[in-house]
Amino acid sequence: MRSLQRSRTSRNAAEGIQTLERELMLRNPELSLGKLIDKQPVALISSVDEDGFPNTKAMLPPRKREGIKVFYFSTNTSSMRVAQYRANPKACIYFFDKRFFRGIMFKGTMEVLEDAEYKEMIWEKGDTLYYPKGVTDPDYCVLRFTAESGRYYANFGSEDVTV
Amino acid sequence: MRSLQRSRTSRNAAEGIQTLERELMLRNPELSLGKLIDKQPVALISSVDEDGFPNTKAMLPPRKREGIKVFYFSTNTSSMRVAQYRANPKACIYFFDKRFFRGIMFKGTMEVLEDAEYKEMIWEKGDTLYYPKGVTDPDYCVLRFTAESGRYYANFGSEDVTV
Repeated sequence: MRSLQRSRTSRNAAEGIQTLERELMLRNPELSLGKLIDKQPVALISSVDEDGFPNTKAMLPPRKREGIKVFYFSTNTSSMRVAQYRANPKACIYFFDKRFFRGIMFKGTMEVLEDAEYKEMIWEKGDTLYYPKGVTDPDYCVLRFTAESGRYYANFGSEDVTV
Repeated sequence: MRSLQRSRTSRNAAEGIQTLERELMLRNPELSLGKLIDKQPVALISSVDEDGFPNTKAMLPPRKREGIKVFYFSTNTSSMRVAQYRANPKACIYFFDKRFFRGIMFKGTMEVLEDAEYKEMIWEKGDTLYYPKGVTDPDYCVLRFTAESGRYYANFGSEDVTV
């Protein structure tokens, strides 16, 4: 009986935390989702290939973001993903917190940028490991994702998010 | 000088391990990728929505797999993903090992199965947490993914995988 009560109490507490989490997320999605995004070691980015299949890949986290609307990634110009986005810019990016089983998916469009301005903006020391010729390496480019909509998933279900 | 030598030695060792890994993967993809898949706490599944955007979501790992060809997942019949796969079965599933930065993506088709046979096959004790009405819960269904092709990503680059 006591253990049943305890289990009810902890269940109520867990539900209370979930309700609070949900309220915080809805009150300021940019802040609370920004935190979730910045903590993740990878971003999952998806494209649609020429045969209409979705393609998903883990990438290094975005180098820069503007709120929860615009995200910049660095990648190889020669990559399959770049070719796919040039043919079809429809994209989604997904950040997932395994520990708390919650995630945020943004749908939008991906642009491939090769201007020096953007390449310099997100260049980091140590990037020569991936792009041996440095910031002007033709095999280095920038992916800019602009979100049109967002959806947040957590234990309590899912919610649309204004971006 | 000594530290340069050491760094060269460890770099050579790392490259040796990568070459070995690649050979093992190519020799028996079912065994080596099976291990990678079974170790991951989540599977990322992607669909294409009615507006042509890719959609990605983390799911519990597959309940059952037949080699690296067929994968069974449990899900809610009422979920957005099920509606999307009914309209467009093109799918990819992706397993990712964050620690070693390697992943495997399979492209193929997703079927929504509501037959008792499949629902019973992958039912597990404790599933009433998700499907309160038990194995016959109409909101419980099975997703069966059949791979058409696979691609393995690791430090050494990417490789097509026969499924």
